[in-house]
Amino acid sequence: MDVRAEIITVGDELLTGFTVNTNAAVLGQKLLEVGVGPCWVTVVSDNEEEISSAVRRSVERADVVIVTGGLGPTADDRTREGVAAGAGRKLELRSDLLGRMRERWRARGPEMPESNTRQAYIPQGAAAIENRVGTAPGFRMTCAGVDVFVIPGPPAEMRGMLEDAILPYLESRFPDRIRKYRTLHTIGWPESGIAQVLSERLPGSLQADEQWSLAYLPHAGSVDLRIGASGSPDQVNRTLRGVARRIRRILGPVVYGTDGQTLESVVGSLLRTKGLSVAVAESCTGGLISHLLTNVPGSSGYFDRAVVAYSNRTKTSVLGVNPGTLRAHGAVSEEVAVEMAWGVRRLAGTRIGLSATGIAGPGGGTKAKPVGLVYVGLSVGRRACGFRFRFPGGRELVKRRSARAALNVLRLYLLGGTLDGLEP
Amino acid sequence: MDVRAEIITVGDELLTGFTVNTNAAVLGQKLLEVGVGPCWVTVVSDNEEEISSAVRRSVERADVVIVTGGLGPTADDRTREGVAAGAGRKLELRSDLLGRMRERWRARGPEMPESNTRQAYIPQGAAAIENRVGTAPGFRMTCAGVDVFVIPGPPAEMRGMLEDAILPYLESRFPDRIRKYRTLHTIGWPESGIAQVLSERLPGSLQADEQWSLAYLPHAGSVDLRIGASGSPDQVNRTLRGVARRIRRILGPVVYGTDGQTLESVVGSLLRTKGLSVAVAESCTGGLISHLLTNVPGSSGYFDRAVVAYSNRTKTSVLGVNPGTLRAHGAVSEEVAVEMAWGVRRLAGTRIGLSATGIAGPGGGTKAKPVGLVYVGLSVGRRACGFRFRFPGGRELVKRRSARAALNVLRLYLLGGTLDGLEP
Repeated sequence: MDVRAEIITVGDELLTGFTVNTNAAVLGQKLLEVGVGPCWVTVVSDNEEEISSAVRRSVERADVVIVTGGLGPTADDRTREGVAAGAGRKLELRSDLLGRMRERWRARGPEMPESNTRQAYIPQGAAAIENRVGTAPGFRMTCAGVDVFVIPGPPAEMRGMLEDAILPYLESRFPDRIRKYRTLHTIGWPESGIAQVLSERLPGSLQADEQWSLAYLPHAGSVDLRIGASGSPDQVNRTLRGVARRIRRILGPVVYGTDGQTLESVVGSLLRTKGLSVAVAESCTGGLISHLLTNVPGSSGYFDRAVVAYSNRTKTSVLGVNPGTLRAHGAVSEEVAVEMAWGVRRLAGTRIGLSATGIAGPGGGTKAKPVGLVYVGLSVGRRACGFRFRFPGGRELVKRRSARAALNVLRLYLLGGTLDGLEP
Repeated sequence: MDVRAEIITVGDELLTGFTVNTNAAVLGQKLLEVGVGPCWVTVVSDNEEEISSAVRRSVERADVVIVTGGLGPTADDRTREGVAAGAGRKLELRSDLLGRMRERWRARGPEMPESNTRQAYIPQGAAAIENRVGTAPGFRMTCAGVDVFVIPGPPAEMRGMLEDAILPYLESRFPDRIRKYRTLHTIGWPESGIAQVLSERLPGSLQADEQWSLAYLPHAGSVDLRIGASGSPDQVNRTLRGVARRIRRILGPVVYGTDGQTLESVVGSLLRTKGLSVAVAESCTGGLISHLLTNVPGSSGYFDRAVVAYSNRTKTSVLGVNPGTLRAHGAVSEEVAVEMAWGVRRLAGTRIGLSATGIAGPGGGTKAKPVGLVYVGLSVGRRACGFRFRFPGGRELVKRRSARAALNVLRLYLLGGTLDGLEP
């Protein structure tokens, strides 16, 4: 039996987007870790009726309900009233809570304003939840067998009460619930291509007793694969390892990393392990390849320099691109990409040179060379080669995809150790 | 009458917190700008029944419904089916959409996988919404007088279709809505400093009949000021103009732009207007200054080149930094920043050279030169000067703040036309 949770976050600022709802994300992740599945998130305004109607619906469909926000001392904080109405209970003043609040204020200096008395009211029959960070107490109550937790919205208070009270309660209430995830990061194949290959080859290779799921999360030309597994702790770890291994075997180097690893950190580790260094020549990516590489701590150990050569003059005078090549093929060409990579490698004295030249848009495209056409060059020692790409999207997206494609070309070379047969 | 919107975001990754729901925040803000009030946000899983039940409820209570996510090509993308079921309609294959999708795939290279055909199905009677960024079309339909929009979840696609189709539609459908916002972007002052000055000087300068509000939105060392105004359309525009003008008068060049203008686009306009060009020498920013400058369409008109000089050898051999200066002051020093700016300007033959050198961390800090210490250099013609900064935060945040500080130094110079008295 699955334990299903609903998260209700209260606040006008969440609806109007002035605050991004990170509380819901934190709650979702933390619930999952104790085996409770977040199934609905509802955001409502600071309005008593909206809150009570959201609570009423949630206790009809969920096993666990967590409400955050709207417990402040001012008149526009309506969560106490809304939850009590939704649960059909009266609010009562809890003198023990009021006493503790007064103490806390005294410890910090000023006398507690009378208006804060509101925060000592909780629904009849509810158990108070202590707040180590702020002054508003939270509470837990049971409605028709459903556990309803109500805690403040400021992230530090929410988090503290979640860790102190809610997660331990849920762990003891629903023991042995375990669901874990592992994410594989891919680059170079479209979502549909990956899905087709996996749907054909993955199921046959799996054990029948494994409980797992697979989600496709595409973004900016890359696809993350999130594997989920349930069962006993041992079984979950075995399943995640097993499914991840099989997917890696099927997709090969299309998978570049796991659980938040970045492409640039993977490239960095490969360079460091092999004791190689790289220099970069950028045109359409405008410094982004270099920016990504240098986001990795310690990148000064293998990243030598980058030259961002926007003008043809820089391409010839600094990188040594042959003016004849520029005339014959244009700045956006495989030939120029190759000469840029070759040039920056020689200039820097590194083993590897990496380059990108293309049309990021919005202007500058032609029928023969449209916006999104990009060439990546890679030079290693005395050899060099170029790769053609065509990316959709606006200027920033084309830059981003180009930079990642260039890093991926470098990664594939470092994995295989040869320029022959590279297929990014 | 208020126009009330419900935002339904679909996706397991939103419930489990693997993805923070920034789409809901963007939608909320943008709806507000056209006078539509976001009143509910509902997050549901990739499950047909959950989606259809959320859609059914939303058309009972809202005037406008926007559904995002779950329009991908794989079997776990269920939004098309869920929405159609919720609206009581059948899905139909739209051959015009299918044809356009095939064309888009062909332009990029590979043949469209058969599985993508799913994306050409939309509910009967719905109008398709074109997707400039990705391949999945969106659609709009009217259910019992309620406008229901359904668009993909990847943020770039969602945003594009929102701006292209949804907002213009809503503006013409609900004219004369009466709350608008204007945002002023600032850099260089802390939130508390701005708040203090404005609280002292702003109120006295305002007309009594103006209905306005002011919100402070700090992020990564910059503060956005959001002015809100209500009233008749005329009055709203007058108030926004008036308040913005007064804040600009009080804060001076601390305000760098309005309503989403980026620092790099402002710098770009100034360079273009003055017919000046710039070259960049980067150490700790690792290419980010160059990346930001080249994010602006047309930047090739004023941006010549960047040299990312991570090693001392590159600083001396390419940028001509004096080895003696490096020995005497270290690579992170005002003197080296100045020589880098000077060197890249001479190398490129531009009027202006801009540089940054610092300690981005996490390693490399000392007591005398801690992580976050950054120098920016600016060279114009035969003159040059340096500026010292100290930034909090991790590696990527220090890089970001340093790059923005360098762009701001350049902006202040371009505004004033002199290096004397620059105070970034």
